[in-house]
Amino acid sequence: MNISHRPSRPRLLIIGGGFAGLNLAKTVDKRRWDVTLVDRHNYHSFPPLFYQVASSGLESSDICFPFRREMRSRKVKGVRYRLGDVKAIDFAAKQVRTQFETIAYDSLVIAAGTTNNFFGIPDLREHVYTIKSVAQAIRCRNEVLDRLERAAISSDPAVKARLLTFVVVGGGPAGVEIAGALGEMKRYVIPREYPGLSREEMKVILVESSDALLRAMSKASGEDAFEALGRLMVDVRLGKTVKAYENGVVSFTDGSAIETETVIWTAGVTGETFSVEGTEAAPGPGNRWLVDEYNRVEGLPDVYAIGDIALHVSSDYPRGCPQVAQVAIQQARNLGRNLSSGRFDRPFKYKDKGSMATIGRNKAVVDIGKIHLSGWPAWAAWMGVHLMSLLGMRNKAVVLLNWMVSYFTFSAGLRLMLRPSKYPLRSYWDK
Amino acid sequence: MNISHRPSRPRLLIIGGGFAGLNLAKTVDKRRWDVTLVDRHNYHSFPPLFYQVASSGLESSDICFPFRREMRSRKVKGVRYRLGDVKAIDFAAKQVRTQFETIAYDSLVIAAGTTNNFFGIPDLREHVYTIKSVAQAIRCRNEVLDRLERAAISSDPAVKARLLTFVVVGGGPAGVEIAGALGEMKRYVIPREYPGLSREEMKVILVESSDALLRAMSKASGEDAFEALGRLMVDVRLGKTVKAYENGVVSFTDGSAIETETVIWTAGVTGETFSVEGTEAAPGPGNRWLVDEYNRVEGLPDVYAIGDIALHVSSDYPRGCPQVAQVAIQQARNLGRNLSSGRFDRPFKYKDKGSMATIGRNKAVVDIGKIHLSGWPAWAAWMGVHLMSLLGMRNKAVVLLNWMVSYFTFSAGLRLMLRPSKYPLRSYWDK
Repeated sequence: MNISHRPSRPRLLIIGGGFAGLNLAKTVDKRRWDVTLVDRHNYHSFPPLFYQVASSGLESSDICFPFRREMRSRKVKGVRYRLGDVKAIDFAAKQVRTQFETIAYDSLVIAAGTTNNFFGIPDLREHVYTIKSVAQAIRCRNEVLDRLERAAISSDPAVKARLLTFVVVGGGPAGVEIAGALGEMKRYVIPREYPGLSREEMKVILVESSDALLRAMSKASGEDAFEALGRLMVDVRLGKTVKAYENGVVSFTDGSAIETETVIWTAGVTGETFSVEGTEAAPGPGNRWLVDEYNRVEGLPDVYAIGDIALHVSSDYPRGCPQVAQVAIQQARNLGRNLSSGRFDRPFKYKDKGSMATIGRNKAVVDIGKIHLSGWPAWAAWMGVHLMSLLGMRNKAVVLLNWMVSYFTFSAGLRLMLRPSKYPLRSYWDK
Repeated sequence: MNISHRPSRPRLLIIGGGFAGLNLAKTVDKRRWDVTLVDRHNYHSFPPLFYQVASSGLESSDICFPFRREMRSRKVKGVRYRLGDVKAIDFAAKQVRTQFETIAYDSLVIAAGTTNNFFGIPDLREHVYTIKSVAQAIRCRNEVLDRLERAAISSDPAVKARLLTFVVVGGGPAGVEIAGALGEMKRYVIPREYPGLSREEMKVILVESSDALLRAMSKASGEDAFEALGRLMVDVRLGKTVKAYENGVVSFTDGSAIETETVIWTAGVTGETFSVEGTEAAPGPGNRWLVDEYNRVEGLPDVYAIGDIALHVSSDYPRGCPQVAQVAIQQARNLGRNLSSGRFDRPFKYKDKGSMATIGRNKAVVDIGKIHLSGWPAWAAWMGVHLMSLLGMRNKAVVLLNWMVSYFTFSAGLRLMLRPSKYPLRSYWDK
């Protein structure tokens, strides 16, 4: 089936099926628009829990949901799904090119999200572990477990020390959460399961370039996270900016350095990029597409952008809305309503419902307006919100079960080093 | 920690933590033996359900259990686990070499199992999909889903036909089960989730070189399986031997050929191999190590073999016991008792408790002695036996939940194409 035919309704093409793209597909009127969603994966995934996949607490399928399965549900019925990694957009010809095909559109929504930002540090991408996709999270899990196993085997103290030093870069929610999970592994798993290692030998170091953790949240949240990580024996170092990571040594701009075989990079994001054709327009700062209050991309008729890849500058947010799930969902619903009515009479305004992060068992921080919660109530709230937000009853049930098992056994149970199969040689990436 | 020190008890080294190795570790007296288990994976896995991982019914972690977690349980407490892929055994020096280290032993148990047998067909390994490990099963799942997505995109009828033709080679339990699962996907998933495809376009072909399916089971079981597969629209072709698979064409010795992009190979196994040093001894037919009725490898003192890699010829089984879980478990328990007492007064005798295979929902075949069961009772028995045999309560609960969801929704829910992360470039396989 090739959809370059012209149906009776105008063709709306959505690039990306994350929080933004999928919620738009749900909201927009399918009687008015012929909707196609293209995504490089065949599943919707849940980024807030990637760190739990990376730390063996959850399995990939617990937080992913196949698009085709979702397309059977009432709200998205009739939306077409197509697998494809968008390589280029020709805004003049109104066409999008993936590795497989060319798709024509009448209106286009860019909701492709962000990827890791390495700030131009040479070769960093090739040597650090990241958690911006499920596949990256699994790779990170494999490598952390590999370090522990190889340390258990090693008889050279210097090699062992390097293997047991884990450096997490970035003090945002992802960095704090993965450092907390590694801290729990150090505190609860090492003493019971690695008879040849002591927990004092394992070092978890969280480095942040600014002077506080969780800067997007309240001061109290940042301070609570700092203390909680300390109790999990995580060494938090503020005001440290990575200069390079070469030959097993991560060096900082202040001249200090740490020997380590494992750097987990959560220090920043940048918009996904495509080759842009048929226009002079280009994305703005952070590779984000500048949009007006109706999520219309400036200078490009019939093109919209929502979610992390959109940059909407307002008096409340002079540097753009934060790149979080709530903004994506609210923009998607707003744009969906405007596209359905065709009137574009409802401007977008972000309603901050609050933000949260977790740092191990019984411990989280939550900000709702001026209210700050921490400790057990915050942790319960964190779990409730994340469970409710997952797609699919099966996923909710399995995640709850995994969390209960981890809670009562004091250990993340899914510690599999699952390496990709070597054969056959032909691989997706070669295509 | 290097274990080439000599403890007060003799050192028993077990290669492989499958059904054979893990059950031996459980049975053998840890006060008498200083036990170490070495395995190339950090988890015990459950091969009878690999096909369900390959067909999106279960997730890898549902049927795997980390060794270090298991080593906390009462029966295996005190057993040391070491990650390592055994590359060589020096029987004279009494040492085993992995990619990481050299391990000395006093007594050795080879329980390394089997791998795929390609019968010397050139380049086959590089082009077919196999399901002899969890990683291989996930690769198979990814590629099957990839074919469906690319077929949904393709506008060339010839390309589409090749993408939608799935050839399963081998009519044993693995081949029958994966063909049945693909048949269910064709029957229940294609019509509901792939609007651009019809189920008539998807072809599942099961080829077997002999004249019957499930030859290790009763004639009635083979015939029932044949019929059940027919109802799932699987095209079963008997008496067909693969000659080659080149350029997208699988050719047979009778001159016929099938154009396909996907060949799933379950046609045979052969013992895992190592470089053998310090002895003239070598494995026998099928790379299996010849053992006497006490699981002692012939000609090699203090060396034992159990499970699929052992070849025990008896009057009941002149070509060796079947390579199934029950034999491995019974041999492990027998050897464990003999090693514990040190007397070797209990010869091994295989008690056949029956065999079973499943072919989709509500359908299985079971042979217990002369009794043959099929249909719903056999299917319930199959599920019960497999659930009970899984390690860990969490795994049992998640597998049951996944089976219930699949049963009521008529679809295997975990259809994720989870490609390995491309970065960082350094990979396990390069080490």
